[in-house]
Amino acid sequence: MAQRLGKYTLLLPSRPEITGYAAVGGKKEGEGPLGTKFDYVYEDSAAGEKTWEKAESAIHGDAVRRAISKAGLTDEQVNVIFAGDLLNQCIGTTFGIRETGIPFAGVYGACSTMALSMAMAAVSVDSSVAETAVASTSSHFCSAEKQFRMPLEYGGQRTPTAQWTATAAGATVISKGRPIVESGKGTAVIEKIIIGRICDYGIKDANNMGAAMAPAACATISDFLRDTNTCPEDYDMILTGDLGAIGSTLLRELMIKQENIDISSVHADCGLILFDVAKQKDVGAGGSGCGCSGAVLCSEILPKIESGELKKVLFVGTGALMSSVSSLQNESIPAVAHGILIKGGDVE
Amino acid sequence: MAQRLGKYTLLLPSRPEITGYAAVGGKKEGEGPLGTKFDYVYEDSAAGEKTWEKAESAIHGDAVRRAISKAGLTDEQVNVIFAGDLLNQCIGTTFGIRETGIPFAGVYGACSTMALSMAMAAVSVDSSVAETAVASTSSHFCSAEKQFRMPLEYGGQRTPTAQWTATAAGATVISKGRPIVESGKGTAVIEKIIIGRICDYGIKDANNMGAAMAPAACATISDFLRDTNTCPEDYDMILTGDLGAIGSTLLRELMIKQENIDISSVHADCGLILFDVAKQKDVGAGGSGCGCSGAVLCSEILPKIESGELKKVLFVGTGALMSSVSSLQNESIPAVAHGILIKGGDVE
Repeated sequence: MAQRLGKYTLLLPSRPEITGYAAVGGKKEGEGPLGTKFDYVYEDSAAGEKTWEKAESAIHGDAVRRAISKAGLTDEQVNVIFAGDLLNQCIGTTFGIRETGIPFAGVYGACSTMALSMAMAAVSVDSSVAETAVASTSSHFCSAEKQFRMPLEYGGQRTPTAQWTATAAGATVISKGRPIVESGKGTAVIEKIIIGRICDYGIKDANNMGAAMAPAACATISDFLRDTNTCPEDYDMILTGDLGAIGSTLLRELMIKQENIDISSVHADCGLILFDVAKQKDVGAGGSGCGCSGAVLCSEILPKIESGELKKVLFVGTGALMSSVSSLQNESIPAVAHGILIKGGDVE
Repeated sequence: MAQRLGKYTLLLPSRPEITGYAAVGGKKEGEGPLGTKFDYVYEDSAAGEKTWEKAESAIHGDAVRRAISKAGLTDEQVNVIFAGDLLNQCIGTTFGIRETGIPFAGVYGACSTMALSMAMAAVSVDSSVAETAVASTSSHFCSAEKQFRMPLEYGGQRTPTAQWTATAAGATVISKGRPIVESGKGTAVIEKIIIGRICDYGIKDANNMGAAMAPAACATISDFLRDTNTCPEDYDMILTGDLGAIGSTLLRELMIKQENIDISSVHADCGLILFDVAKQKDVGAGGSGCGCSGAVLCSEILPKIESGELKKVLFVGTGALMSSVSSLQNESIPAVAHGILIKGGDVE
């Protein structure tokens, strides 16, 4: 039974455990710093499919299958999957998992989907709605460009503030936590969650998502720290979803100016972990897309939590809640950020 | 703490209570059988906005505000809102509720969104994730036609199997249930939920959603009856989301042929309640869209549960998980159905 801490944060006393996870990426992602850490790298961005949308579905389904398999389970043993993506009507997800037979609760959080789906999965396990729940998400550079920006063939120029939608998928399996004494090292548990509020600072530049999302990340992180009466130094890492270079700088500044909290010593951003923006210059301000934080979490962060290298990570997924239609209608970009506190299993 | 019944169904022992609800509709919906029962009828389909998308956001926000107000609460007292819709990237929802400041967990279930969001809200209340949660959804005929079919100005003909996307929104407020003895009559509680599996029977006709969704409804209803060891006659109503005339007939036939269960004596469908298909001939096979079941539930069904006219209603929202892109790519239409059992508060 969840316990509310302060106004927004929830403690999940049973500490649901991440018992399996997988990350898959495309060629460019494979050439980045995490290339060797993915479960699979698709050299063919189309994943053998005829369309970019089908390719995204394929990699989404692949990540889910790998995570379930690595948890030592079958589809049959999973009670519910929380999943979503950024394609219209979430078809990256629905066509990717339709063969599994797992009860499907679709979530929508734009690029915050990995954090939101993991929060929902953790709550469902903590409340015995599920013994085992899966949380997953995906994105694909080509399906996203086609849908949100220009057909690839157009060869449009990109602004320096633009981020690069990751071709990637991440999936986690979350189950009832084993008692700490039994589990010993090598586990990652979700101890707290926070569902974010929508923030809209009036940013209208759809090529500068980082700026639109930074205020939402600021709100969620400061809410969480206030609710838990902790400071940034209490965490090994405060990991934002995909603010990229510009959004990350804005977030750190906002945290200082608005909240008088300096997170710079522990802040990292999935968009800047997935790609090496100094070397991979065409990615602009860094990675983005639902799959970015999903794949970074499941290839780089969770192994480090299991190994004890990281003990307490506050993962804050960030999402821009607009569509290409809302931007054409001159609307600003509302954003949201959801957080989960992931701990090594032997940490009190 | 939820208890699993059988394979898919969950009992929520605290019986979260629906403490407020509201339904708003457009002009055509107002001319239908429920016209006098809506909280507000928009004579102007644009709701005073400049675009159909902004109109949908406006009516969504309106339903949420009315439901919270009717529950005697303020936005500040709501811990989380589960909401979604069918517009790309769910902008009907995000722009509709962005001013509320309520933590927002986006859900995606296509036309099953009302059932899914209510299930999530009920679970969150049962597990103390929230004291009070809101579940809401919306649809708009004009924004849906524009997005999924043809611009209205094109004046395209409709097939007889096509359904009419409702211009409507529904919202419910769900809170910790009062003890039965205190509450007396006049309450509606959510006692059980079931999250559906994706079913795909290979239907490719995007103008025949009822046929695509009927197998999912069949699976969820029969799973629920099996898990709870009950039969259709144990319910006052088994209410499907928006199968319309054709899908409803198919569902009843499927239930008999596949499951040997006859639901015809208690089956009703929101798509056939919202409109009078005999009189309102242009609606084709009935109403559809997320707002259809949302508005029917919140104008027609919940009052009858509170008054005691209906005591046990199994509400099964149905959703077609395709997009216009997947249909153009010759994909079939996967579907899902989520169920919640709503009871009058004085029923054991």
